[in-house]
Amino acid sequence: MNTDRRSVTVVGLGLMGSALAGALLDHGHPTTVWNRSAHKARPLVDRGARLAATPREAIEASRLIVACVLDYEALRAVLEPVAGSLSGRVLVNLTSGSPEQAHEFAAWAGSHGADYLDGAIMTTPPGVGSPEMMFLYSGPDLVFEAHRSTLAALGDPLHLGADPGLASLYDAALLGLMWSTMTGWLHGAAVVGAEKTPAAVFTPVAIRWLTAVAGFLSAYAPQVDAGRYPGDDATVDVQIAAIDHLLHAAQARRVDNALPELLKSLMERAKAAGHGSDSYASLIEVLREPADGR
Amino acid sequence: MNTDRRSVTVVGLGLMGSALAGALLDHGHPTTVWNRSAHKARPLVDRGARLAATPREAIEASRLIVACVLDYEALRAVLEPVAGSLSGRVLVNLTSGSPEQAHEFAAWAGSHGADYLDGAIMTTPPGVGSPEMMFLYSGPDLVFEAHRSTLAALGDPLHLGADPGLASLYDAALLGLMWSTMTGWLHGAAVVGAEKTPAAVFTPVAIRWLTAVAGFLSAYAPQVDAGRYPGDDATVDVQIAAIDHLLHAAQARRVDNALPELLKSLMERAKAAGHGSDSYASLIEVLREPADGR
Repeated sequence: MNTDRRSVTVVGLGLMGSALAGALLDHGHPTTVWNRSAHKARPLVDRGARLAATPREAIEASRLIVACVLDYEALRAVLEPVAGSLSGRVLVNLTSGSPEQAHEFAAWAGSHGADYLDGAIMTTPPGVGSPEMMFLYSGPDLVFEAHRSTLAALGDPLHLGADPGLASLYDAALLGLMWSTMTGWLHGAAVVGAEKTPAAVFTPVAIRWLTAVAGFLSAYAPQVDAGRYPGDDATVDVQIAAIDHLLHAAQARRVDNALPELLKSLMERAKAAGHGSDSYASLIEVLREPADGR
Repeated sequence: MNTDRRSVTVVGLGLMGSALAGALLDHGHPTTVWNRSAHKARPLVDRGARLAATPREAIEASRLIVACVLDYEALRAVLEPVAGSLSGRVLVNLTSGSPEQAHEFAAWAGSHGADYLDGAIMTTPPGVGSPEMMFLYSGPDLVFEAHRSTLAALGDPLHLGADPGLASLYDAALLGLMWSTMTGWLHGAAVVGAEKTPAAVFTPVAIRWLTAVAGFLSAYAPQVDAGRYPGDDATVDVQIAAIDHLLHAAQARRVDNALPELLKSLMERAKAAGHGSDSYASLIEVLREPADGR
């Protein structure tokens, strides 16, 4: 045990908060915990955590406070009565919320003299503590740098910028990517599954293919930033022709086509906007012009 | 140059067909090429390819024929007049098409005494010849095994099964995954881009996140095969709550929400079907019950 480790307080001991406290204990940090239902602290106390009797005792036990509760309202309810104790401390809020909530909380914490980092945990509780897993943070550079090494106990800490809303914004954007990817995979698994191909056979091929897709994203990112989308490899026109094969194959196998039909309609809007011979990245132009906002 | 390499004929010299012939030449295969417009053969002839004057001469030059033309109709038009020369040869058809077209072509080739493999190329022309790139094949095991080492010149050959339609079916399913993933990424890039985050900054984080998502797919594949979806890590109910953050964040930034709204509606259909406390993989149940087919 490394006695140089800074002490940390963890507020909230749901599955995720407990995983956070456990990772800090694993890394030798003196860890104080608090939860509305104290019994959830038992396994952590058995591993060496100190259970605070009150939120005030929890806050005053450490300079660094890591919070992970149900939502921002719940955290505010816990901290508001003890706001006077926050001055000079650092609040790292890993509660899920919106960029707007992060802005409000940063202002509130600042008004009580606390430094504030907002964060997002890009893994499930069993992944906490693994150095491959991303933890996203936003807030002042100096605050992040001062606590980076402690935060590294939880996962790989990435600092996105000083705007406290960025972690929540990235979180939402990355979850959107996840849902899109998982649903596209489920659609494909349903299509090949109709021909008796198990998902366990299809999925390794799908995952390998995602590596190639990641290469396309890397190639398209500078196109998005430049606002120019040369269709050297594959054009929107080519993709529109190709998606009909999927629509027909899925329909013949009675798989719901709402997702590929939506994707085709976005491609056709891009084509109508003059991007037929551009790359798929040009679809960002139609995403930036909401159909329902016209 | 390895003179043991088997000779191969390539029919069709578009960007992709030319890349295929080039990869065979790079691997030392005596390569005969044919294209409707003979001038496209020039760069390949300069690299050592032999240009056949007619389709018949092309077919008769090699036991293994690799075809990659615009569509199945175009290939049929080239081969029908010389079908009598196909007997005893192996036709590897890398033309894009549907599983049904692959079945028809396999039957047609068989009726003329030819072995048949259908294939799908999971890369763009510049990726041809790279051992990381997947080439999917379907058709008789023995035919695939007999030519695996030659086909390895084009990319990593994966055999999906004896049903000749499987390569096209996987192709469609994997492209669906690609479009879903790319569109989810573009949506996320539009959302964070509204806060001045360049796509080139967001994308490495997104790609790293896809590695975690691939882990979720691996965990969910056996759930799909078992038809049981324990929501140990994250439930459909939790995802429905989380997607509202994305919808609000995107709407506030005037990004088109048709994609996340569709994803949410699929989640809500899964919840309505009793999967609220199951994992996201349970959405395959609603994809298998088309809304428009009720």
